[in-house]
Amino acid sequence: MANFYLDNDDIRFYVERGIDWAPLVALVEQEFKLPDGHKTLEEALTFYKEVLELVGQFSAEEIAPRAADIDRTGLQLVDGEVVPPKALKQVFDLIKGLELHGLCVPRELGGMNGPSMLYMLNSELMARADVSTMTHFSFHGGMAMAMMLYSLMEGSTEIDRATGVIKKTRWQKEIAEIVAGKAWGCMDITEPAAGSDMAALRARGEQDAGGNWFVTGEKIFITSGHGKYHFVIARTEESGDGAFDGLKAMSLFLVPAYEDVGGQRVRHARVDRLEEKLGHHGSATAAIVFDRSPAQLVGKRGEGFKNMLFLMNNARLGVSFEALGLCEAAYRLAKEYAAGRPSMGKTIDRHELIADYLDEMQTDIQGIRALAVYGTWHEEMAQRLNIALEHKVEKGGLEAERLKKQFRSHQRRARRVTPLSKYLAAEKAVEMARRGLQIHGGVGYTKEYGAEKLLRDALVMPIYEGTSQIQSLMAMKDTLGAIIKNPQAFVKRAAQARWRSVSARDPLERRVARVQTLSKSAQQFLITRTATDKLRALGGRPLNEWPREFLKNWNPKRDFAYAMLHAERLTRLLADEAICEILLEQAEKHPERRELLARYLDRAEPRARALHDEITTTGERLLAKLAEREDAADRSVG
Amino acid sequence: MANFYLDNDDIRFYVERGIDWAPLVALVEQEFKLPDGHKTLEEALTFYKEVLELVGQFSAEEIAPRAADIDRTGLQLVDGEVVPPKALKQVFDLIKGLELHGLCVPRELGGMNGPSMLYMLNSELMARADVSTMTHFSFHGGMAMAMMLYSLMEGSTEIDRATGVIKKTRWQKEIAEIVAGKAWGCMDITEPAAGSDMAALRARGEQDAGGNWFVTGEKIFITSGHGKYHFVIARTEESGDGAFDGLKAMSLFLVPAYEDVGGQRVRHARVDRLEEKLGHHGSATAAIVFDRSPAQLVGKRGEGFKNMLFLMNNARLGVSFEALGLCEAAYRLAKEYAAGRPSMGKTIDRHELIADYLDEMQTDIQGIRALAVYGTWHEEMAQRLNIALEHKVEKGGLEAERLKKQFRSHQRRARRVTPLSKYLAAEKAVEMARRGLQIHGGVGYTKEYGAEKLLRDALVMPIYEGTSQIQSLMAMKDTLGAIIKNPQAFVKRAAQARWRSVSARDPLERRVARVQTLSKSAQQFLITRTATDKLRALGGRPLNEWPREFLKNWNPKRDFAYAMLHAERLTRLLADEAICEILLEQAEKHPERRELLARYLDRAEPRARALHDEITTTGERLLAKLAEREDAADRSVG
Repeated sequence: MANFYLDNDDIRFYVERGIDWAPLVALVEQEFKLPDGHKTLEEALTFYKEVLELVGQFSAEEIAPRAADIDRTGLQLVDGEVVPPKALKQVFDLIKGLELHGLCVPRELGGMNGPSMLYMLNSELMARADVSTMTHFSFHGGMAMAMMLYSLMEGSTEIDRATGVIKKTRWQKEIAEIVAGKAWGCMDITEPAAGSDMAALRARGEQDAGGNWFVTGEKIFITSGHGKYHFVIARTEESGDGAFDGLKAMSLFLVPAYEDVGGQRVRHARVDRLEEKLGHHGSATAAIVFDRSPAQLVGKRGEGFKNMLFLMNNARLGVSFEALGLCEAAYRLAKEYAAGRPSMGKTIDRHELIADYLDEMQTDIQGIRALAVYGTWHEEMAQRLNIALEHKVEKGGLEAERLKKQFRSHQRRARRVTPLSKYLAAEKAVEMARRGLQIHGGVGYTKEYGAEKLLRDALVMPIYEGTSQIQSLMAMKDTLGAIIKNPQAFVKRAAQARWRSVSARDPLERRVARVQTLSKSAQQFLITRTATDKLRALGGRPLNEWPREFLKNWNPKRDFAYAMLHAERLTRLLADEAICEILLEQAEKHPERRELLARYLDRAEPRARALHDEITTTGERLLAKLAEREDAADRSVG
Repeated sequence: MANFYLDNDDIRFYVERGIDWAPLVALVEQEFKLPDGHKTLEEALTFYKEVLELVGQFSAEEIAPRAADIDRTGLQLVDGEVVPPKALKQVFDLIKGLELHGLCVPRELGGMNGPSMLYMLNSELMARADVSTMTHFSFHGGMAMAMMLYSLMEGSTEIDRATGVIKKTRWQKEIAEIVAGKAWGCMDITEPAAGSDMAALRARGEQDAGGNWFVTGEKIFITSGHGKYHFVIARTEESGDGAFDGLKAMSLFLVPAYEDVGGQRVRHARVDRLEEKLGHHGSATAAIVFDRSPAQLVGKRGEGFKNMLFLMNNARLGVSFEALGLCEAAYRLAKEYAAGRPSMGKTIDRHELIADYLDEMQTDIQGIRALAVYGTWHEEMAQRLNIALEHKVEKGGLEAERLKKQFRSHQRRARRVTPLSKYLAAEKAVEMARRGLQIHGGVGYTKEYGAEKLLRDALVMPIYEGTSQIQSLMAMKDTLGAIIKNPQAFVKRAAQARWRSVSARDPLERRVARVQTLSKSAQQFLITRTATDKLRALGGRPLNEWPREFLKNWNPKRDFAYAMLHAERLTRLLADEAICEILLEQAEKHPERRELLARYLDRAEPRARALHDEITTTGERLLAKLAEREDAADRSVG
């Protein structure tokens, strides 16, 4: 019996040894004191493994065999309603039977109270079978959790302080509906004239005299947008100047797209069209029209952007696991084909070039998984600690201080790796799918083996949930911004890395420290180059001697122009640095992971040297050209 | 009026100044002495420019607007015959009207006697409009030329020695049919169990008692394989041991797939199916079944592989121009979109990351075009000199010696850059199409702007006419093989490059010499590492002191195992080196090209450093792993 969990040693490593389950499950299970909860860590882990085995088998046996059919048939818009392919409907009927939509939902709301970590691992297994099915699946439980979290945030949920059990929550009925597999939700952000630039959004939220809210506007590229519950971001305040003010003019709403009344569907929002996409055919990408659609304000007015950001990390980690599943599928398909295809006297997996491709794919997958698991663990720890801080412990007490410190540490780590993980996983999914196709040669270009489907499906990943370019800019601004905030700490970290690169006893640790040193050196170059553009006097002066006044007035929105050019290169370097660090930590605890770290370093070292080289030696010509164009544009305006 | 020639300054540079037309046109027009030929170089060039303007306009106005329709409709196999989309039929009716199929065919055979150089430039213009249309077009005139060349080679063509005019040729009727747009041909090589590995071919050619030949077997992935005239490679001799003997067992045949007799089609070969492909939908990819199909032997028995190789360079240069056209389309589509898409207060082409992408695309396109034009010019010079040597000049005379020397020099240069050009153009077509899609963001993933079609079309290019991997292995073996043949010359060239890298007066020449030095150093590393694997005693001894005996016994088929791992990296480095050299030559003659050379070097320098780094520091672990597997395989056999 095929099983995408049991056949994957690397995922099993995380479940069995790699993930530090104890503190996470203690938070999830409220110290094992819940009346109907697991009584011990072991009991919980046994349950998680059962779920993984179940989903691993379900993905291999029920989803994978239907993937080609789902891809070929796709979704159709018929008389304003979306009709899924029969195969997709079958899959979701089976999921309903398995009650998987409630995996992470608390038991008191009808779910199984699993950790988000478990959900993400399951996602990868499903995505290996068919990414678009997994995507659509994620807009069920994920949206139920969003409802619960938004309600917690705005204070409309009542929690029993002693047990942590939810007594009631604002969207309890809606959550139950989703858990039962009768509805799903979506996030409506993008508009025709506003993709990555959210300050340009034009949909409006308006309140009538009775205090009722209505949303009007058009939203496009809405994944699973044919669902019932739409979280819609819309403008409620008059906008001031600049992007920041623009973002503060947004509010978040929950808008039901329809209601079924006595067997009749009454629509409040209309599915205008489905995009005709290159791939990802099991997942609807809809354009939705709201025309004074009744809406519920989520949280406070003007907090729409903040609310949206709140879920973004999770969504981006979700794409990492989706991409990982696809990478795993591309790698295994190519490996199997290569092992069975003879050429020049041996199978092609024994030809050096192909063996090198396959080895790199395997190594990259393991690196990305390390990054995504690390990010997910810290993100979930942060979120659960945050809830505990709000609803469990005495404010201002010692315990609260302790948890707050932990919370900040987890949040910082999650924030650091999330854009790196989304960026790298999505880019590598495209790269591996393309490489897998190429390894198949002529048959890869045909529909026969499914290699081309993987590439078509992969190509959306670097685009949605924030393009690769947006991830790069975020990672760059966060990284360089942290240096500006605390140059002393950065200089110290850089010196430590340099020292470890020559003095550490473990040769692997020295190698990791060398990658870190290259990364720090590139960061220092970018920050110095950027700062001296602003203040010539800084040239040659060490970072930790720069004037406080100067650093305090640093505006990350404006002052990183130079580093923007190299943002993507820096992001690749930061991702390799983070992966090396995480794998080193694993290798120290689990000696059997040393081989992986060595293998990853073999790939990462020349990449790091090359990226450092490019960042520190190229780009002047292009920037001069751009500056010239800006001057010309200014002149023509002025 | 849109015109893909007139709007392209870089192509116009080549036509107007960059290409050394004089010696080429002198050969094409037999020193301007042909009775109905051009009388001067200027007259010929005026005609070539008229053709380019015509094809540039035709491509922009007639092909490009039909590309989406051709893509969407595709070809259908109905009752054993292939039905093209209506839009494609319209295009080919128009081409017939313009008499373009005879562009390069000598006038006495019904053509316009244009140079192959002109044909290739036209190809790029057409490919920019729709690559699959261009591909199918190329199987018309290209196959007519193949018929003429094969007949020349086997000695079945009669030429007037004084004028160079063909008096008669073996396939005169067939050529006329193709020129008239009534038929086309194809090359039938690949079989289900033999892709890149031609020694594994199984189709058979058999002779009956009357000396008549028949071909039996199945050929797959035959581009434009629904045509009438099939050049089929088939086994005629019993095979000995080893790949080399296997290849000598092949012969080449011309097999008409059908005959139209009194309005009735009589089939000798059957179109078994059309592949359902990811893209390239205007070009048929057919599986053909031959069952004792009447065949004409081309040349001698056992020369099938040699005959096939003879046309391969041209076909690979053809793919380079096809890929260039697609790159140009992807670049312009992305540039136009970016210039019209506002985000964060300015259009996205003014954001550093996107500006960097567009600048790199433009620079790469110009580099690839330099390589492809250079390769085509030398290839055509070589082919035309070869014909002159065979049919015009006195054998063994002084003139023959002079021409032979020229011929060898052109052949060597063409051979050097052809795999580099095919490799780089095809890989870059995929890369640029993907980047173009990404620049479009969400809409790039939909069918709306055509960005995704370009990527689908591009993905076949690194696969057909010899995969990127095969090109890499060829380039590596040729390059290292040349060093083995003449280590002294290599050591001298490397020393010269090193010297120029510090001493040349022109800073651009110094920079080019540094790229050359990195390339030579990587080559030297690979050859030394490979050789010392074979003979430990060589370690540390300079290349030009290696024993002659050792070098003489070098077998490139077997002894390059180590270098195979790095073949693709070496190929990228060799391509950059060649492009830098060609652009330097241009810059020396045409100062307006200095800017391009500087821009290309900005990109090539860090790439060259990175590739040199990877080649000289990585791979040991993987090779050890492969060797271990080979040992295990040997043990299990032995």
